[in-house]
Amino acid sequence: MSGVRVGIVNVTGYAGVELARLLLRHPQVEVVSVTGRGEAGKRLPEVFPHLAELDLPIEAEVCAPVDVAFIALPHKAAAEAVPPLLARGARVVDISADFRLHDRATYEQWYKVTHPCPELLDEAVYGLTELHRGEIRGARIVANPGCYPTAALLGLLPALGLIEPDVIVDAKSGVSGGGRSLTLANHYSEVNENCQAYALAGHRHQPEISQELDWALQRMANGAGMKVLFLPHLVPMTRGILATCYARLKQPASAAEVRARYETYYAGEPFVRVTAAPPQTKQTWGSNLCLVYPTVDERSQRLVVISCLDNLVKGASGQAIQNMNVMFGLPECTGIDVVPVYP
Amino acid sequence: MSGVRVGIVNVTGYAGVELARLLLRHPQVEVVSVTGRGEAGKRLPEVFPHLAELDLPIEAEVCAPVDVAFIALPHKAAAEAVPPLLARGARVVDISADFRLHDRATYEQWYKVTHPCPELLDEAVYGLTELHRGEIRGARIVANPGCYPTAALLGLLPALGLIEPDVIVDAKSGVSGGGRSLTLANHYSEVNENCQAYALAGHRHQPEISQELDWALQRMANGAGMKVLFLPHLVPMTRGILATCYARLKQPASAAEVRARYETYYAGEPFVRVTAAPPQTKQTWGSNLCLVYPTVDERSQRLVVISCLDNLVKGASGQAIQNMNVMFGLPECTGIDVVPVYP
Amino acid sequence: MSGVRVGIVNVTGYAGVELARLLLRHPQVEVVSVTGRGEAGKRLPEVFPHLAELDLPIEAEVCAPVDVAFIALPHKAAAEAVPPLLARGARVVDISADFRLHDRATYEQWYKVTHPCPELLDEAVYGLTELHRGEIRGARIVANPGCYPTAALLGLLPALGLIEPDVIVDAKSGVSGGGRSLTLANHYSEVNENCQAYALAGHRHQPEISQELDWALQRMANGAGMKVLFLPHLVPMTRGILATCYARLKQPASAAEVRARYETYYAGEPFVRVTAAPPQTKQTWGSNLCLVYPTVDERSQRLVVISCLDNLVKGASGQAIQNMNVMFGLPECTGIDVVPVYP
Amino acid sequence: MSGVRVGIVNVTGYAGVELARLLLRHPQVEVVSVTGRGEAGKRLPEVFPHLAELDLPIEAEVCAPVDVAFIALPHKAAAEAVPPLLARGARVVDISADFRLHDRATYEQWYKVTHPCPELLDEAVYGLTELHRGEIRGARIVANPGCYPTAALLGLLPALGLIEPDVIVDAKSGVSGGGRSLTLANHYSEVNENCQAYALAGHRHQPEISQELDWALQRMANGAGMKVLFLPHLVPMTRGILATCYARLKQPASAAEVRARYETYYAGEPFVRVTAAPPQTKQTWGSNLCLVYPTVDERSQRLVVISCLDNLVKGASGQAIQNMNVMFGLPECTGIDVVPVYP
Repeated sequence: MSGVRVGIVNVTGYAGVELARLLLRHPQVEVVSVTGRGEAGKRLPEVFPHLAELDLPIEAEVCAPVDVAFIALPHKAAAEAVPPLLARGARVVDISADFRLHDRATYEQWYKVTHPCPELLDEAVYGLTELHRGEIRGARIVANPGCYPTAALLGLLPALGLIEPDVIVDAKSGVSGGGRSLTLANHYSEVNENCQAYALAGHRHQPEISQELDWALQRMANGAGMKVLFLPHLVPMTRGILATCYARLKQPASAAEVRARYETYYAGEPFVRVTAAPPQTKQTWGSNLCLVYPTVDERSQRLVVISCLDNLVKGASGQAIQNMNVMFGLPECTGIDVVPVYP
Repeated sequence: MSGVRVGIVNVTGYAGVELARLLLRHPQVEVVSVTGRGEAGKRLPEVFPHLAELDLPIEAEVCAPVDVAFIALPHKAAAEAVPPLLARGARVVDISADFRLHDRATYEQWYKVTHPCPELLDEAVYGLTELHRGEIRGARIVANPGCYPTAALLGLLPALGLIEPDVIVDAKSGVSGGGRSLTLANHYSEVNENCQAYALAGHRHQPEISQELDWALQRMANGAGMKVLFLPHLVPMTRGILATCYARLKQPASAAEVRARYETYYAGEPFVRVTAAPPQTKQTWGSNLCLVYPTVDERSQRLVVISCLDNLVKGASGQAIQNMNVMFGLPECTGIDVVPVYP
Repeated sequence: MSGVRVGIVNVTGYAGVELARLLLRHPQVEVVSVTGRGEAGKRLPEVFPHLAELDLPIEAEVCAPVDVAFIALPHKAAAEAVPPLLARGARVVDISADFRLHDRATYEQWYKVTHPCPELLDEAVYGLTELHRGEIRGARIVANPGCYPTAALLGLLPALGLIEPDVIVDAKSGVSGGGRSLTLANHYSEVNENCQAYALAGHRHQPEISQELDWALQRMANGAGMKVLFLPHLVPMTRGILATCYARLKQPASAAEVRARYETYYAGEPFVRVTAAPPQTKQTWGSNLCLVYPTVDERSQRLVVISCLDNLVKGASGQAIQNMNVMFGLPECTGIDVVPVYP
Repeated sequence: MSGVRVGIVNVTGYAGVELARLLLRHPQVEVVSVTGRGEAGKRLPEVFPHLAELDLPIEAEVCAPVDVAFIALPHKAAAEAVPPLLARGARVVDISADFRLHDRATYEQWYKVTHPCPELLDEAVYGLTELHRGEIRGARIVANPGCYPTAALLGLLPALGLIEPDVIVDAKSGVSGGGRSLTLANHYSEVNENCQAYALAGHRHQPEISQELDWALQRMANGAGMKVLFLPHLVPMTRGILATCYARLKQPASAAEVRARYETYYAGEPFVRVTAAPPQTKQTWGSNLCLVYPTVDERSQRLVVISCLDNLVKGASGQAIQNMNVMFGLPECTGIDVVPVYP
C-alpha cells in the first residue's frame, strides 16, 4: 500500500478515536502508528472493541515514519508534540487549540499557559477548509478549528458586509465536545434531563471566532473589529452542535436575498449545505456536513442563522481529514463522504 | 373534607395529569371531577397507573359542583368550556392560550381562529403570579401563562428600565412542552440525539411576552413598545425550559449591580430564586421554582439572563395551582412546595 | 453505471430510509426507484434532508425496471407487493415478516391475517445469511429476519447440542425497532427515562426463533422441539438490541470450552464477532456487526450468551443488503463494511 | 420542633442527597447534621442548589446529638462509622452493604475486605420493610437493602412455595445506581444510546438475594437452598430498576391463580402494588413504590414476574426513611408518600 502514512497522537480521546474510525476506511491512507497516554502498552481493540480491525499497539510516541500526524492531545501538550514531528519531516494537523490564535498574548491570556513554541504561530494555518483552502494546501501545520467556531463561522461568514459588527452566537452542544476525561459535567446522571449555559464569563472559542471574522472582514476591506458574544449551552445528547447566530442588518434585506447570498457563497462546497428548512443536528450525525439556514426576523430586522454539525466530525476529526486531503492533493471528500446516520 | 372543590378539564394531557399529581397531595383541595376527551368512560388509574390513588371516573364533562375548574384543553376548546363553568358559579384557571392576550385581534391573528367568547377577554387576568398577584386574588378567570413566557418574563422583568426595548430570547425546551398528542416532532427516534430551532417565522408565545413586558414598562411610565425576538429550540429531554435572554444596557452597569436589582425585585418571592451560579433545568425538575441568573457581558455591554423552570410545573400546572391558592386565600405555597428531584 | 438496479418499496419507514442511506454508498448498486405511501409525489430529500444526494421522486409504485426490490412495508402489504415484482422479473428481499414462517397456519395465527400468497411460502428463503447462505444465493424471495430473531439466533445457534431444548431470551431494544409510525409507545416523553417489558402474552418473533432453532437442530439430527421463552423490553435509546440468552447445559462445560465452540462456529464470518468481553450495543451502532459473548454461570450450570446488534442494520437493512450481495454474487461486505460510530 | 433528630453521613452521594430531599419535607424529622468527605467546609446549597432550603454546613463528622443516623458511605467506611454513632446513643440505618449479609465469610468473600465490626452482624436487621417489619421496629442497626435485591425480592417472595428453587433475575438499571463517583461507566457519551450486561462473573447483590429467599423459605419450612442467577444490565436512564424474574412452576398454575396469591401477599402494603398491566419504571419515578406484575408463560410453565422501582427511593433512600418511620413508631408513609412524577 502506498498511501499517506498517518500517525494519530492520543488516539484514546474522542477526537482520536473518531480519527481512527474514519481513517480506517480512508482508501488513500495507512494508519501506521497510534499513541495514547494512559493506555500505552495495550492494543487498540482492547480499549475500543469497535475498532477490532485496526489492530495496532498503542504506543507512547509515534515511532514509525509518518507523512502526517494528527494531534489530538489537550492544549499545551499538543504544541509540545509538534516540533519533534516536524523535525522528522511530518506535517501536522493539530486538533487542539494551540495554533489557532495567531496572537501569542491572546492565546496565553485565554489558555493560562505559556505557549511552548510561539515561533511556529505565524506559520500555522487556521484549518477552516472553506476559508483557507489555498494556504492549507502547502501548510506544514494546520490548526484544526474548534467545534463551536466551525459552526459559528460557517454560519456567519457569508453575512459579513450585510451585518453590523456585533453578533450573538447562542450555541447548543452535545456532551462529547467535553471529551472523554471524567468530570461531573459529563456524568450521565448530572447531564441527562438537564440543560444549562456555561462559561458565561467567556469561553476560549470566542477569540477564535473573532479572529477569523476579523480576518474575513479585513479581506473585504470591511474593516472594523467584530464584537462577538458567544454563549455555549450543554444539552443532553452525545453528538451535535447547533449554533443560533443573531446580528442586526445594516440595511433592510429579505430572507430570500440573504439566502441567495449564502447559496452563492457556498456554491460548490461539498460539505456545507444551505438548507430549505431549519436544520437539525441529527441530519449531520456521523457526517462531515455543516448545514446552514439563514433567515431574517422582520420585526427586529435581525439576521438569524442556524448552523449545525457533528462536533466530532466537521467539528473535529472529519475536518482534520478534510484538511489532510487538501494538504496531500487528494480529492477533498475522500474517506469522509459519509451519509448522516438517521434516526 | 371541606377544601376547595376542584375539577380538571382534560386530565389526559400532560398539563392535566400534572395537575392531578400535584392536587392529589394538596391538603386543602378535593378533586371531585376529571374529564377527558378520548378516554371518557375509563377510570383515571387505568390510563395513568401512577395515579392509582385518585380513582375517579373520567367524565365527558364536569358534572359535580366545583369551586374552581382547571382547563387543560387546547386553545379554542378551552374558551368554549369557560362560559358554562362560570355560569355554574365556578372560577376558572385556564391553562390554554385563550385568555392570555388582551387584544382579540392579536389572538385571532396568531391562533387563526375566531375567539369563542371575546367578551370575557377584559375580565381575564394574566396569571403570572409574581406580576399580577393582586388582580388574581379576585379574578373569576385566570389565564395561566405559557411555559416560555413564564421563563422569559421572570428573566426580564427586573431588568426593565435598565435595558433598551429590544430583547432576544433564545429558549431551549424539553419535549413534554409539545403535549401528549402524537406528532413526528415528539417521536422518540426523531427527537433523541437531536437539537433544532423551530417556529423561526414567529411563535405564538412572542406576543404574550411582548404584551406583559409592555404592560410592565407602562406601569413604570417607561414607555416605548418592547421588541421581542423569541426563538425556541427543542432539546432531547422530557421536562425543562432554559431561556437565555440578551438585551443591550442603556447605561453601563456591573453584573453585581444588576444582580442586586434582581435580588430586590424577587425578595420574598417563594418560587423565584436569583442563583449564585448559572442554573440548570435539573435544579427545578418536578418543582414550581424558577431560577434566574443575570449577568453582564462586558465586551458588548449586554445584559445576559439565564432563566429556567420545569415547563409542566411553574410553566403550567404548578403555577396554575399557585394561582388557585391566591384566588382562594390559601398560603401560596400550599401543595406545591416540592423540592426538585435530582438527579 | 452498470450495477444492480434496486427499488426500495416504502422508503419512508426506518428500514426503508436506512436502506437508502446504505445503498447510496454501495459501489455496485444504483437505486432507481423509491416508493412511499403517504409521501408519494414529494422528492426524497424533502422528507429526509440527510439524503440530499439521492434526489429521486417518491413514487406510488416501482415503475422502472429493477433487478431487486427491497420491501419495507408492513406485513400483509409486503406480501401483496411481491407477486407483481416477481412477475416483472425482479428478485425480492422482503424485510417484513410475511415470508419468514414456513408454516402458513403459524403465520396466520400470530399475524391475524390471511396470507396473501401462501403459494410462495415454500420458495422463500429465511435470510439469516450466516445460516442459509447457500440457499440465498439462488433465491427469488429472501425473507429478511426480524431484529430480535437475528440477535437471538446468532447468540444461540452455536450452542445447539450443548444445551437443553428450553431457552429464555430476555431482549432489550431501542425504540426505532417500533418503526416511524406514531404511537404512545414511541412518544419521547413516554419512553425517555423509562424501561418496560412488553408482549408478555407472546411476541411474533418467538415462532420465528423457534422455527430456525428447530431447523438447525434437525439438521444436526438433534431432534426435539426447542421451547423458547422470548421476552422483549423497551429501553430508552434509538438503536440497538441486546439479547441475553439463558439455557441449561446438558453436561458441565467451562466458559472456555463454550467459547472455543463459538469461535469455531463463526470463524470466517465477516459480521459476527465473538468478543473478549461482554459487548455493548454502542459497539455495533450504525454497523452490520453482531457481537456475541458466551459464558457459563457456574452455580446454575447455565449457558449465558449476550448478543447485540444495531436493529436497523444487521437487524434489518444491513442484513438485507448482505443478502442482496449474496444473491448477486457480490463480495458479501460490499457497501456494508461500516465501522460502528462511537461514542 | 420536637421531631426525630437526624444525621446524614455522606450527604454528597446520590443516596445521601436523595435522603436530604425527602427528609426536608418529612414533617416529623429535623435534619441536624450532614457530613461529606470531599465537600466538608462548604454549605449544602453550594454543592446542591436544589436544596437551597436546607442551609446546613457540610461537616466532617456528625457532631450534634442525633436520634438516628443514615449512613450513605461506601462499604467498609460505612461499618467503620457505625460503632461511634451507636456509642453516642444513635440508631443507624446503613445504606451500604456492610450489614446486609449475616455471614461474615460471605461478606468478606464478595467485598474483598475484612469486616470492621463483625460483632454487630448478628444484631443488624435486614431492612426490607415488608419482610422484616417486626424486627426493624426495635433495631439499633438496620441494613438497608440493595436496589436490585429490593426489586428481586419483592418480585419473588410471594412465589416461594410455588416455584422450583432455581431462579433467574435479569435486571435492568439506570445509571444513578452506580453512584456519583466518576467512572467511564457513567460518562454520558459512553452510556447514552448504549445497553450492556455487566458483572457476568457474579454481582455482590446475588448473595443478598439468596440469603433472604433462603430465610423466607426456611420460615415456610420449605427448605432447600435457592439458586439465584442474577444478571444486571445498564440502560441509558438516570433512575429506575426493572427486574424480570423467571422460575419454573412446581405444579401448573394459571396467571390468575398466581396473581391472586400476590395480591393476598401484598394486601395492606402501602408501597407495593400488584399491577393490572406490566409496569414501567417511569410509573415509580421519584416515589417509594414497587410495582409487581406476575404472570405465567404457558408454553414453558414458567412464572415470569416484572418488578420495578426507583433505585434511589424504594431502592435506597426512600426505603431507609420507611425503615426509620418503623423504628420510631411513625406512620410508615410519613414523608415518603410521594406520587410518581410522570412523564
